Amino acid sequence: MARTRLTPERESELFAAVLDLLREVGYDALTMDAVAARTRSSKATLYRQWGSKPKLVVTALRHNKPVSLADVDTGSLRGDFHAVVNRSDDCQMEKDSALMRGLSHAVHDNPDLLQALRDLLVEPEMTGLETMLRRAVDRGELRPDHPALRYVPHMLIGALAARQFVDGRPVDRAFLLDYVDSVILPALGV
Amino acid sequence: MARTRLTPERESELFAAVLDLLREVGYDALTMDAVAARTRSSKATLYRQWGSKPKLVVTALRHNKPVSLADVDTGSLRGDFHAVVNRSDDCQMEKDSALMRGLSHAVHDNPDLLQALRDLLVEPEMTGLETMLRRAVDRGELRPDHPALRYVPHMLIGALAARQFVDGRPVDRAFLLDYVDSVILPALGV
Repeated sequence: MARTRLTPERESELFAAVLDLLREVGYDALTMDAVAARTRSSKATLYRQWGSKPKLVVTALRHNKPVSLADVDTGSLRGDFHAVVNRSDDCQMEKDSALMRGLSHAVHDNPDLLQALRDLLVEPEMTGLETMLRRAVDRGELRPDHPALRYVPHMLIGALAARQFVDGRPVDRAFLLDYVDSVILPALGV
Repeated sequence: MARTRLTPERESELFAAVLDLLREVGYDALTMDAVAARTRSSKATLYRQWGSKPKLVVTALRHNKPVSLADVDTGSLRGDFHAVVNRSDDCQMEKDSALMRGLSHAVHDNPDLLQALRDLLVEPEMTGLETMLRRAVDRGELRPDHPALRYVPHMLIGALAARQFVDGRPVDRAFLLDYVDSVILPALGV
């Protein structure tokens, strides 16, 4: 079947509308009908281009984070982590956290959403993170068999997940930079 | 107003029924009517004893975890963390994780639930954790001004929150013990 590609501008508009809807109504109430109405496109186009609602939602999330972790290369692991934190502003971080909170609940009722998140978002970010960490190993900053290496994602997710709960405050750059310096780098022996 | 106390056995039964309902239907659908029906008690009794649904739910959760972190005292920080992990079995951990996942979503729509969780569950656990860490400082295992000290809750919550997402597997004791040894103790310089 011939696939008519959307222009990049049209695709960006469409993804932005999907994320707006996701924030407004949540994953369960976000229907392909609502996306079609909001973006003035046909449901047939949406299904042809993205296959399913979970894939469309996760592709929209992925589009929202265009810079891969693997592209950050400052010459030191500390510099790389700080660059990753600094590429988001505080307002964007709070919006992202709100999205992730909504989705982290939805995944438990939607195995296909969990699968799409893992394939399209978690796996690429993990691969990017591994590339960043491997460069630090190659530079001699980090032992290749360090036992904390496999837990860097858990440490990062902990910072994002626990901030509101523990401290009653949203995640911001100052907190994340301090967490990198106080927890992640020392745990890695850097 | 005179408060007729329930017997401890009756209270335990009632809390167990609240947690069963919470797992079955989730926080939003758990009504005081449903609790009254399931436990053959009157709504008036429930409100008189616990004041509100969020307080009843959080008190039931707290009752489920009778051992305070502060009571764990093995003589070393590593021993204390391992004792905390070992006091739950794997099946109980998975049930607790499922409860916390459901509640972590509900708190965003229910500020009174968040408040009750913070007052009745998070604060006492934090205080217990601080006591455990202070003993390690007093023994000379840990520097009192160590920058990672304030982030121990974030590291712990990260392990619980990220396991399913990152590794596609539920939290179990073997994972948590390895995380304590690989991440938490090295981050603290122990």
